[in-house]
Amino acid sequence: MILILKETATSKQIEELLRKLKKHQLSANLITADNKNIIVVTGETMSLSSEEMLSSDLIEQVQNIAEPYQLANRKFQPKDTVVSVGEHTIGSNELCVIAGPCSVEDERQILTVAKKLKKSGATMLRGGAYKPRTSPYVFQGLEEEGLRLLKLAKKETGLPIVTELTSLRYLEHFCDVDLIQVGARNMQNFEMLKELGHCKTPILLKRGFSNTLEEWLMSAEHIMAGGNPNVILCERGIRTYETATRNTLDISAVPFIKQHSHLPVIVDPSHASGIPSLVEPLSSAAVAAGADGFMIEVHPCPEQARSDGGQSILPADFVALMKKISPIASLCGKSVHISEDF
Amino acid sequence: MILILKETATSKQIEELLRKLKKHQLSANLITADNKNIIVVTGETMSLSSEEMLSSDLIEQVQNIAEPYQLANRKFQPKDTVVSVGEHTIGSNELCVIAGPCSVEDERQILTVAKKLKKSGATMLRGGAYKPRTSPYVFQGLEEEGLRLLKLAKKETGLPIVTELTSLRYLEHFCDVDLIQVGARNMQNFEMLKELGHCKTPILLKRGFSNTLEEWLMSAEHIMAGGNPNVILCERGIRTYETATRNTLDISAVPFIKQHSHLPVIVDPSHASGIPSLVEPLSSAAVAAGADGFMIEVHPCPEQARSDGGQSILPADFVALMKKISPIASLCGKSVHISEDF
Amino acid sequence: MILILKETATSKQIEELLRKLKKHQLSANLITADNKNIIVVTGETMSLSSEEMLSSDLIEQVQNIAEPYQLANRKFQPKDTVVSVGEHTIGSNELCVIAGPCSVEDERQILTVAKKLKKSGATMLRGGAYKPRTSPYVFQGLEEEGLRLLKLAKKETGLPIVTELTSLRYLEHFCDVDLIQVGARNMQNFEMLKELGHCKTPILLKRGFSNTLEEWLMSAEHIMAGGNPNVILCERGIRTYETATRNTLDISAVPFIKQHSHLPVIVDPSHASGIPSLVEPLSSAAVAAGADGFMIEVHPCPEQARSDGGQSILPADFVALMKKISPIASLCGKSVHISEDF
Amino acid sequence: MILILKETATSKQIEELLRKLKKHQLSANLITADNKNIIVVTGETMSLSSEEMLSSDLIEQVQNIAEPYQLANRKFQPKDTVVSVGEHTIGSNELCVIAGPCSVEDERQILTVAKKLKKSGATMLRGGAYKPRTSPYVFQGLEEEGLRLLKLAKKETGLPIVTELTSLRYLEHFCDVDLIQVGARNMQNFEMLKELGHCKTPILLKRGFSNTLEEWLMSAEHIMAGGNPNVILCERGIRTYETATRNTLDISAVPFIKQHSHLPVIVDPSHASGIPSLVEPLSSAAVAAGADGFMIEVHPCPEQARSDGGQSILPADFVALMKKISPIASLCGKSVHISEDF
Repeated sequence: MILILKETATSKQIEELLRKLKKHQLSANLITADNKNIIVVTGETMSLSSEEMLSSDLIEQVQNIAEPYQLANRKFQPKDTVVSVGEHTIGSNELCVIAGPCSVEDERQILTVAKKLKKSGATMLRGGAYKPRTSPYVFQGLEEEGLRLLKLAKKETGLPIVTELTSLRYLEHFCDVDLIQVGARNMQNFEMLKELGHCKTPILLKRGFSNTLEEWLMSAEHIMAGGNPNVILCERGIRTYETATRNTLDISAVPFIKQHSHLPVIVDPSHASGIPSLVEPLSSAAVAAGADGFMIEVHPCPEQARSDGGQSILPADFVALMKKISPIASLCGKSVHISEDF
Repeated sequence: MILILKETATSKQIEELLRKLKKHQLSANLITADNKNIIVVTGETMSLSSEEMLSSDLIEQVQNIAEPYQLANRKFQPKDTVVSVGEHTIGSNELCVIAGPCSVEDERQILTVAKKLKKSGATMLRGGAYKPRTSPYVFQGLEEEGLRLLKLAKKETGLPIVTELTSLRYLEHFCDVDLIQVGARNMQNFEMLKELGHCKTPILLKRGFSNTLEEWLMSAEHIMAGGNPNVILCERGIRTYETATRNTLDISAVPFIKQHSHLPVIVDPSHASGIPSLVEPLSSAAVAAGADGFMIEVHPCPEQARSDGGQSILPADFVALMKKISPIASLCGKSVHISEDF
Repeated sequence: MILILKETATSKQIEELLRKLKKHQLSANLITADNKNIIVVTGETMSLSSEEMLSSDLIEQVQNIAEPYQLANRKFQPKDTVVSVGEHTIGSNELCVIAGPCSVEDERQILTVAKKLKKSGATMLRGGAYKPRTSPYVFQGLEEEGLRLLKLAKKETGLPIVTELTSLRYLEHFCDVDLIQVGARNMQNFEMLKELGHCKTPILLKRGFSNTLEEWLMSAEHIMAGGNPNVILCERGIRTYETATRNTLDISAVPFIKQHSHLPVIVDPSHASGIPSLVEPLSSAAVAAGADGFMIEVHPCPEQARSDGGQSILPADFVALMKKISPIASLCGKSVHISEDF
Repeated sequence: MILILKETATSKQIEELLRKLKKHQLSANLITADNKNIIVVTGETMSLSSEEMLSSDLIEQVQNIAEPYQLANRKFQPKDTVVSVGEHTIGSNELCVIAGPCSVEDERQILTVAKKLKKSGATMLRGGAYKPRTSPYVFQGLEEEGLRLLKLAKKETGLPIVTELTSLRYLEHFCDVDLIQVGARNMQNFEMLKELGHCKTPILLKRGFSNTLEEWLMSAEHIMAGGNPNVILCERGIRTYETATRNTLDISAVPFIKQHSHLPVIVDPSHASGIPSLVEPLSSAAVAAGADGFMIEVHPCPEQARSDGGQSILPADFVALMKKISPIASLCGKSVHISEDF
């Protein structure tokens, strides 16, 4: 950590600061450049937050040189993490394809779509049971009944299931869920992250819609620090000034994360764009940029969806998407599972 | 709600849509303009989310004309909400001044600062016991011991206490807290909002750092819909591209919310700017823009703070700030409590 | 255009507004829904800006239903625009690959790099002669001498040249430039756009770093309305809160623009990311998302570059990039020119 | 400047870099901390841009310690700059109040409003003659005729006139303009800034809607470096994700700029919010935060405005605004000119 002191800092204040740093078992090296006093701090600086060091009357700028995250850092674990989910893996040479409706609505809906997806190359089934909704006046999900229907679909198709946990109070119902999703709005719900660190189930950690890549990796670090190494990151678009798309897919996040972390990364083009006709091009882009897979919303009848129908694609579009993407995925070292009668 | 249909919509699809709307007990009026089919929907449209209506192959644009929030809406309750907190009120002609350290650190720290603040015009004492921290490796708050020290400070000074709830699992310890803060990261933790709707304690709802004004009011609506009308909104800066300040204080939020809602609004210039020398000018601006008060971080020794020391001001600066702001507050119809020996 | 009136609008005001609209040769149809007065306006509404209609005391919301841009709109010209630049084309089944250094620095630099690029599949040579620089104290470009060197490189290699115009006062020197670049900072320099509408030379219109897709297409419309149909759009990253990358590449812009406009679209991953190791994955993503090509910075010795060295890749990296992307481009219907001895 | 090297940098590369720095007459001091090589560079580092130093294979991070702007920097000129415009001053203890319509439309409009404004405390008259418009199909301003009408209004009322220059080609017509406005879209039109550096006329430099405070001061530096010290900064709202207001007024910019620069700063709440009912509260906030004044849009009949009618206030509202703000301005050390019969 490099501290650039204010010009108003007195020698007495500087001495005190140096003493304080030494008390924390840190080495501090004072140098002067361009009339500025600069302190280079080394040692276990991770326990100092930059904000703490920016104390009012002494320090003007702080530059971190140590890595803020460790367990998620590729520097300390060069090999890719491969997470097993049911019979499938994420982060390997298998393309991860998670598909399904925004919300589980009824038995017929989820079974119909699950069977079609299974045939056309999906490796996991998604579906919301507990839904975080902006308005208290709209459909909030089928809750426990939704989980029951997802498990039924799993039994019928063999597809592992992925669904969102919105509160720790529901965690007890998630024992048969194969991949627990932490939604964008809970990416910095640190109490939830800490608790999921004690689970064995893999975690799909969506990026908060206004969180930086570093904050995202720090949230993964919260889970991993608790003992659960099976974290998969999902880029789902960030909030910007652009309103033509629902969010702005930060495609650069894919290669950036792959270079800085060993964790698998997938992309959610449905939430990122909110526009069905953009789902295929953005999925293709994600695979070409090095993503380990994608998660998309597919609904048998989007007009009748009880949430996010507008961004869902039809099962037939999903088939076309898989046909388009398979050869690109092959070029990028990812194989696709498509049943023989596809 | 106005639905503008895609040009590709067939008469059959339009008829189906009209039927579907009528099934929801809504009136639907089809008109044609510039070769576009437009449906004006009236009735209880609040249960339709815009997103749901944007179903893939039919609807191009949706324009809401009904108000998305009702209980928080000034249109339906023109009179200002006044919330009582201890002997003080927020939203009345009394300026609300919440001050204190970012984190409660020890007995001496919190008692020293509380006594100074009481004398210089603070109406409530803030201090973090449970701290949401980006890194798992830094100070996470004193937790229950922090709450105990806050209550001690309340006993000594009479100041009502304000502190953040980071998980419902801690709610049982918050029975003596006068004003429960929902932090920016939990503004859309809907499970928490619903539960707080069943409390009697007033709620200080901070704006999420990337949430719109409408989303913020919808979160207030979640609490109010549960039966708790005592919600105070706190603007604390939003995340933008600008890095000179920690966040960007959205000062327009103050008059905008006052015009659209009857709920009290205060401003947190410490988190908004992250820069001590900006705290006074931004507090003045907030009062001049019509805010009901402000919440600021004051620490007896910022250099030694265990969190956010960099944005805290000294007790002496707080005295100067109150002297500067008092006459502006008077001009804006807000009175300030300053003890005689101030 | 749909106008939703404020509830405070009096019948007299409404009548006046209807009269005013009719005076503009527009049809206006007044309907009432949910106690709101709504006017549906049809006819040549393009001359009314939404902002103008939001007049203070009458109109609450404006919804445009007509298309704000016409000449650039795929609805009115379904066929792709193909722009010829030298012997190459953009928007056809040929992958457009523009490469070269940020700034032209000297004869040896530009000739060396141009020859290498020609061999490895570049279709055009870029290089800055006039440089818009944030600081007045750094290198501002070789100006006319830079243009001379670019023309020399064109003569040696046959590559058409692309360079930025920073002021109309230099336009007279651009007669031999094959593709004139309008930089991000000039995307809304309407006086420049209007003047370029009177040129015959194709224009590479970069997206402003905080402009919406609609504003971008409106700027293309400014050029086209002047008589120059040869506009190529270049997405180069937008400004967001994320600081890990220099800008955020808005990859969704590619398929969105292709669907709404017939103009060619390319991507600049060098400026978008500012990180050399991201250039290849982002170029691949752009091609997979349907871009007509890309423009990247290549410098024979980035450490010695006089501007933007940090985001340039080496000629050897460019060769590797072309090898990686060629088969993806083929799958996406775009062929690549690579000389035999590649 | 502090350079933190990548771990892959070889001793040979580091030596070369040190040699290169010395060739630029800079001192370079190599130190090692936490296994990182760090170079502290001192001397005239202003001519190195950070971007240039981030050369691909050597440097990981760059931290500037020298000030990027000098002429605009309060550190090097502690005394406030006071700019004279006609009989008025900006940056002194006089509140600067610029008011008038978005566009000059006809003689009657501009004379009517100018006389009313003069009486109610405006110190300068604004009005657009050349208008930068997003669409080529809407009103583009009266151009030279607009300038003639502004000069007429000045003759009748004595108010100095402020109007926007959209292209250097019109500069010859601006000789009688008292304060030349550089609009947000031209804030980084460096060719224009350089040319205006050679003028004597004061420049009102609006902040680009997505420019940082540092970029804004660097643009002021461009003008000042040319020899024109009379620059006034105008904060007019920045582009963020929030759509409830047209832009987001960055109120923190006011005290931040006042602390870091000696140049006068005013605020434009009309463009910042786009909502007439927010103009007074935001003007009050600006004055309370330390602004030297504000610029607002006033139109005698906003419904009939040919541009931006929706954000204009009525002359009567302007009178009310001045009455509300005068006592706040007095408290903040700024006096207001209101004629006796006000």
